[in-house]
This record gives sequence, structure tokens and C-alpha cells, in this order.
Amino acid sequence: MPKVLVLPGDGIGLEITPQAVKVLEAVLKNHSTSLSFEYGLIGGAAIDEAGKALPDETLAAAQAADAILLGSVGGPKWDTLPAPQRPELGGLLAIRKALGLFANIRPVKMLPMLVEASTLRPEVVKNVDLVVLRELTGGLYFGEKGRGTEPRSAFDTLIYTEEEIRRIVDLGFQTAAKRRGKLCSVDKANVLESSRFWREITLEVAKNYPDIELSHMYVDNAAMQLVRWPEQFDVIVTENMFGDILTDLASMLMGSIGMISSASLSGSKGLYEPAHGSAPDIAGKNIANPLATILSAALMLRYSFGLEQEAQKIEAAVERVLQEGYRTPDLAKPGDKVLGTKEMGNAVVAAL
Amino acid sequence: MPKVLVLPGDGIGLEITPQAVKVLEAVLKNHSTSLSFEYGLIGGAAIDEAGKALPDETLAAAQAADAILLGSVGGPKWDTLPAPQRPELGGLLAIRKALGLFANIRPVKMLPMLVEASTLRPEVVKNVDLVVLRELTGGLYFGEKGRGTEPRSAFDTLIYTEEEIRRIVDLGFQTAAKRRGKLCSVDKANVLESSRFWREITLEVAKNYPDIELSHMYVDNAAMQLVRWPEQFDVIVTENMFGDILTDLASMLMGSIGMISSASLSGSKGLYEPAHGSAPDIAGKNIANPLATILSAALMLRYSFGLEQEAQKIEAAVERVLQEGYRTPDLAKPGDKVLGTKEMGNAVVAAL
Ligand SMILES: CC(C)[C@H](C(=O)O)[C@@H](O)C(=O)O
Ligand SMILES: CC(C)[C@H](C(=O)O)[C@@H](O)C(=O)O
Repeated sequence: MPKVLVLPGDGIGLEITPQAVKVLEAVLKNHSTSLSFEYGLIGGAAIDEAGKALPDETLAAAQAADAILLGSVGGPKWDTLPAPQRPELGGLLAIRKALGLFANIRPVKMLPMLVEASTLRPEVVKNVDLVVLRELTGGLYFGEKGRGTEPRSAFDTLIYTEEEIRRIVDLGFQTAAKRRGKLCSVDKANVLESSRFWREITLEVAKNYPDIELSHMYVDNAAMQLVRWPEQFDVIVTENMFGDILTDLASMLMGSIGMISSASLSGSKGLYEPAHGSAPDIAGKNIANPLATILSAALMLRYSFGLEQEAQKIEAAVERVLQEGYRTPDLAKPGDKVLGTKEMGNAVVAAL
Repeated sequence: MPKVLVLPGDGIGLEITPQAVKVLEAVLKNHSTSLSFEYGLIGGAAIDEAGKALPDETLAAAQAADAILLGSVGGPKWDTLPAPQRPELGGLLAIRKALGLFANIRPVKMLPMLVEASTLRPEVVKNVDLVVLRELTGGLYFGEKGRGTEPRSAFDTLIYTEEEIRRIVDLGFQTAAKRRGKLCSVDKANVLESSRFWREITLEVAKNYPDIELSHMYVDNAAMQLVRWPEQFDVIVTENMFGDILTDLASMLMGSIGMISSASLSGSKGLYEPAHGSAPDIAGKNIANPLATILSAALMLRYSFGLEQEAQKIEAAVERVLQEGYRTPDLAKPGDKVLGTKEMGNAVVAAL
């Protein structure tokens, strides 16, 4: 029986992950595949109970699991710790790196009933259907960093090896091949040496994919184009730091980051988490939106277990619930039927 | 007589700078201050005529001038040169660095008649009035960069000294003090060491400005917030690379980067240029929008020559022309009166 490690983490993570587990159990009821769920600690919760943000048991369990479902980490309680020990660096970034999850995939597909929630004009966002592929274990996040004296200074290094670029760009081409056949590689090759190298490797990889329409865009322009004309994009592939910025930006096309799921993959393993954070301000109130986590569970079925049909069932159930006018507070407009976190999870189960 | 060095550069730079010069001459007619204009080469034009993107004469003239008006640089013709020789790195970045222009200021203020040109909903952008202050001579752009072998790799370094951070953040506080008193410092302190250092120095500088409301925001969230609720911002201050991305993004709130002016300042010197590029595809057709360059000339009067009243006269003239329904093609909607580059320049002069 495939093993799923559930890491609720902190803040609203504790409320949203149970909804996704519930949905996974419901969609696989009477199915030949069933999943076993184990639980572990990560982030602030792990610091409090086990002394560090990524305890050895959690890492071992993650290595043994077939897939990981993560809620969210962090909160003001741990913000005064030295940065490398905090939930974000010591927990989230550490598990990504330790498991070699080099590819972060965030699909941004507009749902008709959410067009009104976007701050962009309906005609600009109504057909948005794009995927951002972000390199997740290299670049500015993981290069050498430190401090200097006389004068006091600090630095980070954006470094990429050929292989690191090749594998993510290759996945970009493969992803585009399964979609509309367009790949846009985002860099800053007019300024950065690492970007010029990124572009060279991308052009090498492109030779294996003659049918994919490849374009290159500077990151400043890409940020602009995502607001100006987002429908032009099919698949975007980019460096870790640029990807962090562009994925959040792309999420906002949907009106709320509360709808954006993500998959972080290596060859054999996947970690699935909502794109939003732990939202300490609304934690414990049963008002957080669980849909991004539920949609992340759908990505798990798709990428880790090859259960495409069941993934689509979840996605369709989410659409149906929204279609019927149900919303968590972050998405609600006057006239909507507002549901709590748990009730939204139940509604998705019912719609299955 | 104060000396202005005009560097038209490439592409539409040749068409838009004369419009700004015309407007400067018109607003200072019968004024006690009058400016003398000299011309120089930069970018691709300089490569073609003088063998390098920033010729020594140009740099000397820039050092001798009181202010510089720049059009735009770059074009496909020079894109096959090694990057350090290209118009962007060898010209634009080189002159910024050589003159120590550490502060790039881009005001983004919505004009009522341009609300319709934005891809964002009117209620989201109608009161936007913000300034992005981008550090311009440090960070990821200017740190050590290079290639490695075995494995093949490439790197750039994001490095800041205390003094580099202090002077731009200090200007951020000063700018906020003259506006609505809110400064948002954008960084990625949950991941980058340079950002944690940036935040420390910012908190030190903040002690001198007890009346300014300081906030910190992660760059991914800032990109999101600029789309979600841009009116929350007064002054944003940030690192060079983040600033490059966020200024372009903020520009799009106005519907076109064709309206965004910029000032790049050091203590005593200012370079003024539109935020847009050289747009080779529309160059030579008399259809480029000269307003960002004209508004950059207004910034020159304000920051380099202390002529606040005359700066405002230009800004008011631009507003009036737009109010009357005149537009260049990039901003035109059905029903607008479309003008060419030169005619738009004339219209602003007439409105003065
Ligand atoms: C929490 C933070 C370290 C993380 C990142 O920057 O990768 C988050 O913003 C994300 O995008 O998953
Ligand atoms: C042309 C390019 C090098 C430049 C930059 O990145 O600084 C431009 O994008 C800008 O913002 O002025």
C-alpha cells in the first residue's frame, strides 16, 4: 500500500491538511489503490516538540514515503530564531533540498466562477491556463552565503551547474509537449552570467524538442507580461528566486493564492503543498481555504500515483462546489454561501 | 548655464528624446534659468561609431554635465556581441556605475484618464500613487560573476556593503517623509543573507525617522500585493534585481510602460530616462510614446535643478493633452485621437 507522509506544519496547516486527507480517502473508497497515511512534524511544531524544524525522524519518514502532503510552516513565535533554524529555512527549504525536489510545478488555471475574484479585468484573465515550473534546489537560495567585515557586508550566490539547468528545462519541454506546446524560459541574460549559461543550456536541450515553440523572456518583462497579457503563456520555466516571485504573481491572477496548488518533484518522489503560507492571523478559526491543499492532493494522485482519473475527479468536485456558490471567506463576494474550512472539505467530499 | 547631456541611444530613443528637449526649451522660455544641450553617443549607436557602448568622450561629457537625458539602448543588431560589450551592459549599466547613480526612482501615479488602459480593475488602480526606489549600482547586477568547469557552471553574486544599503534606505525614508510617510522595504530575509543584512541596516536607519511608518515585505508577497492592492504602497525601497522586476510590474498598473519616467541619482548628478526600452520593432515609424521621456525631463527639473514649479507645469501639460483625448497608439482605445511621436511632443508644448 503506497505510503503518504502528512506534515501539517504550523498555523492553518493543521486545519487544511485533514480536509485533503478526507478528500483523498473519499475519492479512493472502493478503489483498487488505497493509501496509508502517516503523520510527522515539521516547522515550528517540530522545533517545539523535537528541537529542530526538520527532525531526523521526519526526514527518514519522508525518504521512506511514496509521497508527502505538506500544510504550511512558520509563524511569529519562531521569527526570532537565527534564520537557518527557522521553520522556513530549517524545515521547508531543508526538506526540499534533502529530498532533491528540484522541480516545483504550479498550475494556474482560471475557473469561470472565480473570474470575478481577480483584481484583473475579466477579459484579461478568463482564459488563463498556464504552468510555472520553478527550479527549487539551486540558484540564489542555495549558493554560498555569508557576511564580510571592513566594510560590513553580506552576500548570496546565484549558481547553477549544467545538470541542474538541464533537468528542469527538460521537464519544461516535456510539460509543454503535453500541453499547448509552448515553453517560455525566463532569465535576465542581459545582465547575469548565470542567466546566459541558463539560456545556452536551454538552447542545447531545445534540440531534442523541435516541435516545441521556445521563447526567452527577461524576468522584468515576464512580470509585466503576466499582468498585461497572461494568456500568452503556456509553460514558464525559470530559476528558483525568479520562480518564487513569478509563481506568487501568477497566483494573483486567480484573485487569491488560496486556490494555488503545487507539486515539488524529483525523479521518484513528490511533495505536495498549497502555495500559500501558514497565515498565523487566521489560524485556529476554521476560516482558512483548504482548496489549494485539496488540489495539491489531486496533483499527488496525478504525479506520484498515476491516478489521472481520480485527480480529475477531485478537480471537478472543487469546481462543482464553487459553481454552486460556496466560498471560503477569502474568496467570498456578497451573495456567496460562505463555508468554514471543515465544511468546505465536506462539501468537496459530497461533490465527489 | 546648466549643461544637459542628451544621449538618444538606439531605436525609438532617437525619436523620443527630441520631444523632451523641445518641451524643456518651451517650459524655460523667458525663464531666468536656461539649459544648454549637448549631444553624445551611447549604446549600439556608440558601438557603431566609436567602437564601444560607452565611449570615453561620452563618459567625460556626462561627468562634466549637470544632468543627463537618456533615450534607450539596445537592438537585435548588437545582440550577438559578448554580453559585456552590448549596449545594455557596456552602455547603460556602465554609465550608471561610472557615475555612481545608486538610486533609481520611478513614480507610478495613476492619471484618471488612463484608468481604462490598465488591465487591472478600475477600483483597484484608480488611486495608485507610489514610488519605487531601486538600488542601482550594487547587488546581483554588479557582484562577482563568472563560469566554472567540472561541472560546467555559472554564477553571479548578490553583495551589499553597509554603506550601499544605508544610503538608498535613507533616501527611501526621506522620500516617504515628503509623501504620505510610509516606507515598505522589500527583501527576501527568510532566505537570503544579504536580505537579512538589508533588514538590519534598515532598522538602524529607521531610528533617525521615528515618524515614518516602516514595514518589511518579502519580494514574492510584494509582487502579489502590487496586483492585489497597489494603493497600500507609498514608497517601496529595494535591492537592484528585485527593483528591476517590481518597477516593471508596478509600471503595468498604468496600462503601459510608455508612461513611466525615471530618475537615477547620486548625490550631485542625475540621469533621466524612460522606463521602457528601445523598441526596435516600432523604431523610425513616428509612433513611439514620448511621454515617459517628457515626464523624465520634468523629473530632471525637479531633482537636478530644483525647478519644482516648471516640473509641475510639464506634468500638468501631459495630463491636459491626455485629458483632451490624445493618445499614442500604445494607449489608444476606440474613439481616441491618435497622435504620432512628434505630434504628441508638439501637443505637450502647445498645452504649456
Ligand atoms: C517560505 C519560503 C521560504 C518559500 C520560498 O521562498 O520558496 C515560499 O515563498 C514558497 O514559495 O514556497
Ligand atoms: C536594459 C536592462 C539592463 C535594464 C536593467 O535591468 O536595469 C532595464 O531593464 C532597466 O530596468 O533599466
